[in-house]
Amino acid sequence: MSQVKAYGAADAQAELKQLTIERREVKPRDVKIKITYCGVCHSDIHTVRNDWGGSQYPVVPGHEIIGKVLEVGNEVTNFKVGDTVGVGCMVDSCRECEPCKSDLEQFCDKGMVGTYNGKDKHLGGHTFGGYSEEIIVDNYYVLNVPENLDEKAVAPLLCAGITTFSPLNHWKIKKGDKVGVIGLGGLGHMGIKFAHAMGAHVVMITTSPEKGKDAKRLGADEVLVSKDAEAMKKHNGSFDFLLNTVPVGHDTNPYLNLLKIDATMCMVGAVEPLEPMHGGNLIMGRKRIAGSLIGGIKETQEMLDFCGDNNIVSDIEMIDMNTINDAYERVINGDVKYRFVIDMESLRKE
Amino acid sequence: MSQVKAYGAADAQAELKQLTIERREVKPRDVKIKITYCGVCHSDIHTVRNDWGGSQYPVVPGHEIIGKVLEVGNEVTNFKVGDTVGVGCMVDSCRECEPCKSDLEQFCDKGMVGTYNGKDKHLGGHTFGGYSEEIIVDNYYVLNVPENLDEKAVAPLLCAGITTFSPLNHWKIKKGDKVGVIGLGGLGHMGIKFAHAMGAHVVMITTSPEKGKDAKRLGADEVLVSKDAEAMKKHNGSFDFLLNTVPVGHDTNPYLNLLKIDATMCMVGAVEPLEPMHGGNLIMGRKRIAGSLIGGIKETQEMLDFCGDNNIVSDIEMIDMNTINDAYERVINGDVKYRFVIDMESLRKE
Repeated sequence: MSQVKAYGAADAQAELKQLTIERREVKPRDVKIKITYCGVCHSDIHTVRNDWGGSQYPVVPGHEIIGKVLEVGNEVTNFKVGDTVGVGCMVDSCRECEPCKSDLEQFCDKGMVGTYNGKDKHLGGHTFGGYSEEIIVDNYYVLNVPENLDEKAVAPLLCAGITTFSPLNHWKIKKGDKVGVIGLGGLGHMGIKFAHAMGAHVVMITTSPEKGKDAKRLGADEVLVSKDAEAMKKHNGSFDFLLNTVPVGHDTNPYLNLLKIDATMCMVGAVEPLEPMHGGNLIMGRKRIAGSLIGGIKETQEMLDFCGDNNIVSDIEMIDMNTINDAYERVINGDVKYRFVIDMESLRKE
Repeated sequence: MSQVKAYGAADAQAELKQLTIERREVKPRDVKIKITYCGVCHSDIHTVRNDWGGSQYPVVPGHEIIGKVLEVGNEVTNFKVGDTVGVGCMVDSCRECEPCKSDLEQFCDKGMVGTYNGKDKHLGGHTFGGYSEEIIVDNYYVLNVPENLDEKAVAPLLCAGITTFSPLNHWKIKKGDKVGVIGLGGLGHMGIKFAHAMGAHVVMITTSPEKGKDAKRLGADEVLVSKDAEAMKKHNGSFDFLLNTVPVGHDTNPYLNLLKIDATMCMVGAVEPLEPMHGGNLIMGRKRIAGSLIGGIKETQEMLDFCGDNNIVSDIEMIDMNTINDAYERVINGDVKYRFVIDMESLRKE
């Protein structure tokens, strides 16, 4: 075991501050990673503040991790010291159940082990995430980072990236499809980039007209202001797919009307009760509403490779570790374009 | 034009009583049908009482029509005088739009013409349904009734049948699938019969344990009482498909938990706002909720042929036309096993 510096919250009301955590020794299949960058995800804040219940303290968040390999266990053949690697939202799963065998470890029957606040099989207690100097992870859950990408801006791909790539990939978005991305934040901005790269006609759907210009820069072909009833009506029944990234409960009925017959709206943001949906909006046109959670390890690597091939990274704003509490307030206020990434050197220097 | 006897409601508060309506003359593609039996659908009551808005009076309901061909237009080759035929929920559509060309006339871009309360292209005003002596329908919307089936009990197949067959068919239910049918009424009892005939392991899901015995008679392999939290838990994550026939807004969250990864719950009954659905219940397991509306003409004929091949009809209780108002109260109270069918001879004798 080794002791490393980290940032965490002592309880749901506490601000994050520096603390010391223990990391396990490197086992045969493990990769020891020096964390260089870590993205700031809205889930970090939800967990710190126990919004979803079940948080265990101290919470050390961070599941958009980029780093350099410091050491590998003697059974590890796919990584070597010095490699640039990534770790996303999970660090373990049973690997024996049907979902795991189907490359859907995020739905492991026994529960995936979250990168933070998961059940730590090695040291007991719970896992600590990427707001720390180092992390040790089973090589199966470690990802290759394409060399041509700016690694700082790759960090958010490990959560915001795969969360939006996976549904677009699963529902087979292709050239010419009309895809709506609802909400322009950390998730939405990646959704636009991916749908655009897949060849779709991308419509950014937002309540905020002022976001339109940026949406077009990111790859949107059109901007649809959802408060504009006339504009919404013009797009009725025309979308092949809707990616709904709104992070809170909301009225999904106006969006269901936008779907073509047999088309799907996929929810990736709102882990909350949605406002009452009208059964008739599903029944008329055999519409569907679905959800999607990150993606499996294999698909996460596919996403990173797709990003390498298409030069896609996240739009980021760099911060130092000791400004994390202010950054959280800005995330909550939607005041970031579009993802904060922590320069972990700033923690080492503290 | 000809005048025929019918039963209808003068306004949303009125009871149904005998009145006289006009039927158009037989045009080249028309089939004139002497109505022998007509099923009583919950939609009839909703329309009579203007529950969904937009009802035009007098409302003459009835869209589960069985009859004998009296006369055919000179372009009609697929029906002859004396044939036993059916008419379901629609009597026309544009036949030129994408949905119509895809055999999904129920989603016609210009709006399908409902068998009652639709826009009558021929006489102006609105269409009158099957609670009448005769009806004249374009042959495209007339269905063949398999000879081996009891035609009285075929009537409800034209709405309750296709409404439940279509989603099971569309989502490709097959031997060995675990299918839950939620709610045991006019729709639910057909859902059980179809899913059973398709080879599925059928679980009747109900709030009423006393319905269990009958569900098994209809073809259910198991009965799951949804109020029994322990029993529900045992079935968590185990269903390939759920057919939700509950006719009112309700809490769908407990059912979403029953679905396997990537599985769908299809709504066919609740044309009402559903209680708030938790986004997390869709996101965890990439679950889907969808809707389905009756079925196209081609699929309705497939359903009837499937019924002929598998000896499937509805469980019915026969009534005379003049008892319709009492029958409505019984439908509302769920006091019918499982569909009322009107013997239209009773109207002719009035």
